[in-house]
Amino acid sequence: MRIALAQINTTVGDLSGNCDWILAFSERARQQDADIVAFPEMCVTGYPPEDLLLKSHFIFNNLKALKDVAGRVHGIVAVVGFVDAGKNGVLYNAAAVICDGKIIGIYHKQALPNYSVFDEKRYFTAGKNAGLFSLQGIPFGVNICEDIWTPDGVFTQQAKGGAGLILNISSSPYEVGKRQYREKIVTQVARSTGAYVGYVNLVGGQDELVFDGASMVVSPSGKILAAGAQFKEDLIVCDVPLKKKRVAKAIIVKTKAMGKKADIKPQISKRLSLVEEIYAAIVCGTRDYVQKNGFRKVVIGLSGGIDSSLVAAVACDAVGRGNVIGISMPTRYNAEETKNDARLLAKNLNIEFYEVPIEGVFEVYLQALKPEFKNLPFGLAEENLQSRIRGNILMAFSNKFGWLVLTTGNKSEMATGYCTLYGDMSGGYAVIKDILKTRVYDLCEFYNKNEGRDIIPRSIFKRPPSAELRYNQTDQDSLPPYSVLDKLLELYVEAHEDHKSMVASCKDEKLVKRVVGLVDKSEYKRRQAPPGVKISKRAFGKDWRLPLTNQYKAF
Amino acid sequence: MRIALAQINTTVGDLSGNCDWILAFSERARQQDADIVAFPEMCVTGYPPEDLLLKSHFIFNNLKALKDVAGRVHGIVAVVGFVDAGKNGVLYNAAAVICDGKIIGIYHKQALPNYSVFDEKRYFTAGKNAGLFSLQGIPFGVNICEDIWTPDGVFTQQAKGGAGLILNISSSPYEVGKRQYREKIVTQVARSTGAYVGYVNLVGGQDELVFDGASMVVSPSGKILAAGAQFKEDLIVCDVPLKKKRVAKAIIVKTKAMGKKADIKPQISKRLSLVEEIYAAIVCGTRDYVQKNGFRKVVIGLSGGIDSSLVAAVACDAVGRGNVIGISMPTRYNAEETKNDARLLAKNLNIEFYEVPIEGVFEVYLQALKPEFKNLPFGLAEENLQSRIRGNILMAFSNKFGWLVLTTGNKSEMATGYCTLYGDMSGGYAVIKDILKTRVYDLCEFYNKNEGRDIIPRSIFKRPPSAELRYNQTDQDSLPPYSVLDKLLELYVEAHEDHKSMVASCKDEKLVKRVVGLVDKSEYKRRQAPPGVKISKRAFGKDWRLPLTNQYKAF
Repeated sequence: MRIALAQINTTVGDLSGNCDWILAFSERARQQDADIVAFPEMCVTGYPPEDLLLKSHFIFNNLKALKDVAGRVHGIVAVVGFVDAGKNGVLYNAAAVICDGKIIGIYHKQALPNYSVFDEKRYFTAGKNAGLFSLQGIPFGVNICEDIWTPDGVFTQQAKGGAGLILNISSSPYEVGKRQYREKIVTQVARSTGAYVGYVNLVGGQDELVFDGASMVVSPSGKILAAGAQFKEDLIVCDVPLKKKRVAKAIIVKTKAMGKKADIKPQISKRLSLVEEIYAAIVCGTRDYVQKNGFRKVVIGLSGGIDSSLVAAVACDAVGRGNVIGISMPTRYNAEETKNDARLLAKNLNIEFYEVPIEGVFEVYLQALKPEFKNLPFGLAEENLQSRIRGNILMAFSNKFGWLVLTTGNKSEMATGYCTLYGDMSGGYAVIKDILKTRVYDLCEFYNKNEGRDIIPRSIFKRPPSAELRYNQTDQDSLPPYSVLDKLLELYVEAHEDHKSMVASCKDEKLVKRVVGLVDKSEYKRRQAPPGVKISKRAFGKDWRLPLTNQYKAF
Repeated sequence: MRIALAQINTTVGDLSGNCDWILAFSERARQQDADIVAFPEMCVTGYPPEDLLLKSHFIFNNLKALKDVAGRVHGIVAVVGFVDAGKNGVLYNAAAVICDGKIIGIYHKQALPNYSVFDEKRYFTAGKNAGLFSLQGIPFGVNICEDIWTPDGVFTQQAKGGAGLILNISSSPYEVGKRQYREKIVTQVARSTGAYVGYVNLVGGQDELVFDGASMVVSPSGKILAAGAQFKEDLIVCDVPLKKKRVAKAIIVKTKAMGKKADIKPQISKRLSLVEEIYAAIVCGTRDYVQKNGFRKVVIGLSGGIDSSLVAAVACDAVGRGNVIGISMPTRYNAEETKNDARLLAKNLNIEFYEVPIEGVFEVYLQALKPEFKNLPFGLAEENLQSRIRGNILMAFSNKFGWLVLTTGNKSEMATGYCTLYGDMSGGYAVIKDILKTRVYDLCEFYNKNEGRDIIPRSIFKRPPSAELRYNQTDQDSLPPYSVLDKLLELYVEAHEDHKSMVASCKDEKLVKRVVGLVDKSEYKRRQAPPGVKISKRAFGKDWRLPLTNQYKAF
């Protein structure tokens, strides 16, 4: 049997667009003589549709769209993810098996994830049906995403029921290490059941999530027979030697005889390295956020620092250098060196660049506030004001020209609150909000190396990071060295670890308390932050639901 | 048996503070000769602790705190809500029955809400134990919140098992109509089981939620024997005639003999009217957000319009007029009349008031942007700029003096996006974000009437609402009349209704499309908005999880 896995890039809510795309890929698969093509979980609606699922008309329209797709698929069996409706408003995360213009059978997902970024129990009821089908006498099982991540999940019964092939349709978001873990899981399922496994995963960005594709076909011995690209649409076609077998209770799928086919060599895409993978993830997430929200151009405040340099580079790869605008907004506190670096970066990237000095605006604000601020010393209010003026300027460009503002804050800043609400946090998408500062440097090194020259000027790497909101300021006036800080943040934020393991990491109890204090008291800033690509085990977003009002003192 | 219901105001995370308060109310109940005192759901941790529950040290410290409370409660039986830990990291939403320094038994909540603002399946496993206890031979059942909202819930078995009293400990957030519905549910439980029901509910604000208390004791015939205050801490004490009865499998609670007591007359607090209730809810939510987050003073931008007038009035009742600062920030577009009304309101409320004209700042921004904006016509960019300058000024005051900024946007604006991100949306708490504009007027009328004079100047009610960001602007240039709009928003936002019912409401299909379009495309603004008090069935917050990237077109 020839199977095809169509890792497509859907858009949440775009029912007709998604369905057209399903049909296009079905046709591509059919042209390669595939007998069956599988699409990702909920590909009709896009994933995750979140509270759109609470709208009865959305469910109705998704069913209509599925029916329409079914009527138009011919010459191939298609497994398509959608939302099924039971009695009394009950919903199922479902897969339809479609053949020759008809929906032959439906499977309802049994394992509903309700942790991390997932809220599936908010919407869905767990299914109970077997998901066992028989195509021209060849039995196969269909299940959905989390179903194979559960020990002794439905796949066990499907294999026991006679399935020699298990098709798992997924929408499994990327995070560091996930691909390896996923391969382990899929391989285990193949080995434990003795079945071939076809695993198809969604591709593309949806708000803070990025789906990495990397679909695969695995043999019963655990060998990867075919592997799709990462972060790109792909169609994998692979022959699996399956036998006819009589099984009880399978849903019968009849189609025209599956004849002899020309040989194919299944594709095994080379896997990306860690840094390539992360870079690809933020490019993909940014591109899809920008484009699926109807923007063409993006605007970035260029400070001459490492963070905005990375964001500008990513933006060029995401939407094209012709669609990226950099704006430098210096005050009296910005050194010539950083201003020059901002300009040089823009030149190296070959992007549109403006310099809008904000010293005059800053000065007039100070005058306006003088009667009430009297002679109080320069402080946080004045520092934040500069950052907020910059935010306003970028938003003015956004409003005037329809450009999306990309923010440039990294995860170390978001965690410790080393950022200004309504200032540098102003914007539609926060490209590197889940990237710790030490990793920002790694990504910039990777970028330059990959480009074959220092597009991001070397001096930016060498200069100690500074917000330049007063004279002679450096980040390390307020924060511990990033190499120390980032390790503590991995423990406290990404692993919810306690005091002891943090002290074990840095041997400095006072520092641990300080960092914990900074993270805890910055929750209100994060709550009003724009979304950004999740790449870690725990990102500030849907998998970080800490209360704002919170007097818990762990240490 | 004399029962006491302690509707206390806890703080999320403040384990030791909450426990001290539990002990204080236990002592008050003991002094009134109560045999048993019940506290709200998860009163040890505060509710809802959200992802604090993912931190193992938080669970550990909550158990330690409970044990400490248990050791200090004497002379009365106490039912205390906490988080219990089972094997392998399993957690239960739990109630401990405490007597004479010991935890005698524990009940685990069975019905875990995972809809609307609730995510309990993210954290908890459903319990299985019976929750049946016997105090000196008198059997009673203990269960938690949602347990009685489920038909044939655990209360049925408890009553069948012999319980003549059912104690339900809740943390049930307020929304319009909820108290009446809750009384219906509790009354039904009493009638269907033939048992007395003691229902205790949390009081106070936690981020966007407000808990209204309104605890009650209901007789088997459905009569309310005692009723606690709304939105205030209270201790209800009430005698219920229960008989000793031998029951199988109850956990035995032994204490010193329950002797004769002086008669008491249980309190039945008068219920608030709808408008009183909503006003009390936003005062309570605002007060607790401000104070539990360590602020004393709040600052509000006063425009001379109805929204900021209401917010200023609420703020005075929430934190005291001495802690409220109003700031007027006029430009060329602000009429003398509105400027005067802002000043008059501040005078009537007797609050600190500053006028910081922003015309000069606005002018300098326009100059700074001129090279790039060239001669493009005045538009949204320039309008938003004024709003953002005001946001910056308020935040500068906040940074300088440690005042919390309260925002003044209402739900009609939040829904349609008639508000400026990083402008009038800047602030820590959005007092009226869940109040539709038409209701804003009702609340202001109520406020003046209640105060016995027009604290909010009559001219503010009469003037057509305007953002005053250009000459001769009114809200109705951009929006349909609020009386029409608000009805459509109730259908589309609060009820997720479809097209048909909206057209049935306003008889104008084009208008429906326009309003739906405005709501859909403003999601990115709401995502970055501060939290505010939920008072409706569906507020923009935890019970509104729409994707940002969303191409669904319903109509």
